[in-house]
Amino acid sequence: MRPYLPAALFAFAALGASAESGLDAKSIRTAEGLRESAMRGSQAYAIVESLTTEIGPRMGGSEAYDRATVWAQAKFKALGYDKIWLQPVTFPVWQRRSESARVISPYPQHLVLTALGGSESTPGDLRAEVVEFADLDALKAVPDGTLSGKIAFVNLKMKRAKDGSGYGPVSNVRRTGASEAARKGAVALLIRSVGTDSDRLPHTGMMKYEDGVARIPAAALSVPDADLLANMLRRGKPVTVEMNIQAGFSGSKTEYNVIGEITGRSNPDEVVIIGGHLDSWDLGTGAIDDGAGVAITMAAGALIGDLKQAPKRTIRVIAFANEEQGLLGGKAYAEAMKGVMDKHQLGAESDFGAGRIYALHAGVSAESRPLIAEIAKVLQPLGISPAEGGGPGPDISPSVPYGLPWVELQQDGSDYFDYHHTANDTLDKINAQDLDQQVAAYAVLAYLAAESKMDVRPEPPKAGN
Amino acid sequence: MRPYLPAALFAFAALGASAESGLDAKSIRTAEGLRESAMRGSQAYAIVESLTTEIGPRMGGSEAYDRATVWAQAKFKALGYDKIWLQPVTFPVWQRRSESARVISPYPQHLVLTALGGSESTPGDLRAEVVEFADLDALKAVPDGTLSGKIAFVNLKMKRAKDGSGYGPVSNVRRTGASEAARKGAVALLIRSVGTDSDRLPHTGMMKYEDGVARIPAAALSVPDADLLANMLRRGKPVTVEMNIQAGFSGSKTEYNVIGEITGRSNPDEVVIIGGHLDSWDLGTGAIDDGAGVAITMAAGALIGDLKQAPKRTIRVIAFANEEQGLLGGKAYAEAMKGVMDKHQLGAESDFGAGRIYALHAGVSAESRPLIAEIAKVLQPLGISPAEGGGPGPDISPSVPYGLPWVELQQDGSDYFDYHHTANDTLDKINAQDLDQQVAAYAVLAYLAAESKMDVRPEPPKAGN
Repeated sequence: MRPYLPAALFAFAALGASAESGLDAKSIRTAEGLRESAMRGSQAYAIVESLTTEIGPRMGGSEAYDRATVWAQAKFKALGYDKIWLQPVTFPVWQRRSESARVISPYPQHLVLTALGGSESTPGDLRAEVVEFADLDALKAVPDGTLSGKIAFVNLKMKRAKDGSGYGPVSNVRRTGASEAARKGAVALLIRSVGTDSDRLPHTGMMKYEDGVARIPAAALSVPDADLLANMLRRGKPVTVEMNIQAGFSGSKTEYNVIGEITGRSNPDEVVIIGGHLDSWDLGTGAIDDGAGVAITMAAGALIGDLKQAPKRTIRVIAFANEEQGLLGGKAYAEAMKGVMDKHQLGAESDFGAGRIYALHAGVSAESRPLIAEIAKVLQPLGISPAEGGGPGPDISPSVPYGLPWVELQQDGSDYFDYHHTANDTLDKINAQDLDQQVAAYAVLAYLAAESKMDVRPEPPKAGN
Repeated sequence: MRPYLPAALFAFAALGASAESGLDAKSIRTAEGLRESAMRGSQAYAIVESLTTEIGPRMGGSEAYDRATVWAQAKFKALGYDKIWLQPVTFPVWQRRSESARVISPYPQHLVLTALGGSESTPGDLRAEVVEFADLDALKAVPDGTLSGKIAFVNLKMKRAKDGSGYGPVSNVRRTGASEAARKGAVALLIRSVGTDSDRLPHTGMMKYEDGVARIPAAALSVPDADLLANMLRRGKPVTVEMNIQAGFSGSKTEYNVIGEITGRSNPDEVVIIGGHLDSWDLGTGAIDDGAGVAITMAAGALIGDLKQAPKRTIRVIAFANEEQGLLGGKAYAEAMKGVMDKHQLGAESDFGAGRIYALHAGVSAESRPLIAEIAKVLQPLGISPAEGGGPGPDISPSVPYGLPWVELQQDGSDYFDYHHTANDTLDKINAQDLDQQVAAYAVLAYLAAESKMDVRPEPPKAGN
């Protein structure tokens, strides 16, 4: 935990509000009050405790997601949001039915794996020899047909990083590996889990088949199982694995983004959007991914709703549907809202676990930067500093091309990928005080953006984009 | 890791060998040489890597244990042991076939549990309301019949401790809880896993039914699942769980303690015994419990076997069968050897994971203490100090009543119960240098005990015992 500096030290900040930010001293004081209130204890932990306990896993397409929808509406209501509505999202339903694997020879023992989201089934028990690759490039380098009748095993380790920068290269293996392997003739893909842990709990996550390439089943071994299989292969004898994955798409379903609003006092049709995604993978209880984000932003909006006077603009908190299977709720939001995106003052999503926020980065025009600078001043006592790099949260990213200005509040994700998409994504991985710090940051951000006289504009597209 | 002090600093120790220890300066120098050799790198990590990779889980009663027996014989041979033999152990076979559980109402979601060793099956799907107890005393305190038709859930947290002292109270719940619950009318027992982790991996371990009490199925929830269930119950509504455990005893099997010896040069019928247990639970690969103990003591014996001259007495390394289901290999050893227990100079077992040794404690007579003191001097550069409390390792404990003098080399078990009896007991939890330190300690202990002119005698039974 970072030390929290007493508010008194920073009270002078209110005196310095710049005219260019469109904020006056009173609104800065109000934002500081929100910050202090959140740091004294917010409702976020109770919200995520409620979601994980009363609903638990709520994968897109599951009956549990419908219960989560009811839960979210009730929670918005209990938290005092004055407008609560649903936005439909229709998509094909993927189901995990069963999964198992074992080494048949030369060293018989079971293996722990989980099907990747989107994977097809094996034709009953699939038995084949395993061929290991250090990474996707090594797999791509072998001639087509080389892996005929074999299982490709890509054993790329993920690097731990505060900013999650280790995720890109390994999640690319997960997303695209099956079609690459199929092109070489493989009958299945095994990957080392996309994770930084050493627990015998595999990491699921979405994969996608390329059109025109055979659709082979794809699964992730837990990190210790990937090591075990590699140690077997190192001995030089052919290693035969039997795997049985029963999974796949069937039918479609309509689910809903659940939206709660604190209506603005003077410009109610202009909105600041914050949120997280309500769906989770099926293995854990969806605590850090993304019960935390839903809880933080619900609690932040509720704090603003508790003010004597609502801000000028509307605070819209969105619990997005089915982020995990392709930002489906985020895309539905963008599609539905593209005609009124110019009424969107700012967007920010919390979807990187429950670790504290240490930086902020904004995707806004140069003219809008004085407001961001003013917000940064109020966030500074929370241990948050401006950062150079960053991007919008996943579910707001489809709205960015339509002109959504955005801020990323960057969290410490050092341990996020220890638990991400595994059965270990449970409530005990969350610290209540860390959530409070994030509620403070989201409340300050959303309030000041909603209260500023300035109209925030998005960062202009860069040349070549 | 503790710093390792260069040997030169301690070379003078050889000069101080006391006549009462039965050791001369040369034997002390040889022991110091064994210590230095082990610390430069032992074979222990390669041995446990081989066992966990080539055999993996090897539960008592499984076909895999037979393969482990062949493995151990071959490994003793490759390590240069001059006598390798098997000692039979016959016992009833317990099998885990399948296990699953979920909350039916009011908050439907799945639960992660594992059957306790020795548990009977549920009659198909068992659905019942759950009643929580803080500990076994709370369960014992309710009148008989109170839990009629219900599932008793004992949610006692284990305390982390270097010496594993948190294990006693919670493992007592595991061992005896089912009969206590059955006496109150319960149809099943759920316990919080006996573990210090917060991973969604339940801890198995043996339980026992009392004669004359209904034999109800018993299982452990993972720690996050126990918290989840408790959080549900805290809300005050009845919580119904469905569990399906298919497990039980059928038939019997003969397995073997696998024994390797370095024959003594002058008193070959007198033995120093060291060892670990070869069996493991079925969920992990049996790395820390107890591949590590087998590897450490095999490697220590092999180092002694590599000396130009064998010690006076025989070094006997025992890979015990079926420790997990009731010290069955240890009991078989004691029974077979009770007539020659006076030929046993000393015994020590490694069965507390792969953490470094920090203390030694001996169960020997007052007259034998000068030898232990001399051994302690040679162990001191390894960061090992004499300790007051302790007991013999599990598999040698049945030999103690027949007169086996013993030493306990106490390991740092701070994280042992994070992984103990779970799927997470895998090779990655072991540090090779930590094993080397333990090989050094066991080699010194076994060599000096085998070389001393003194006949070690056991601690006399205390009054009242």
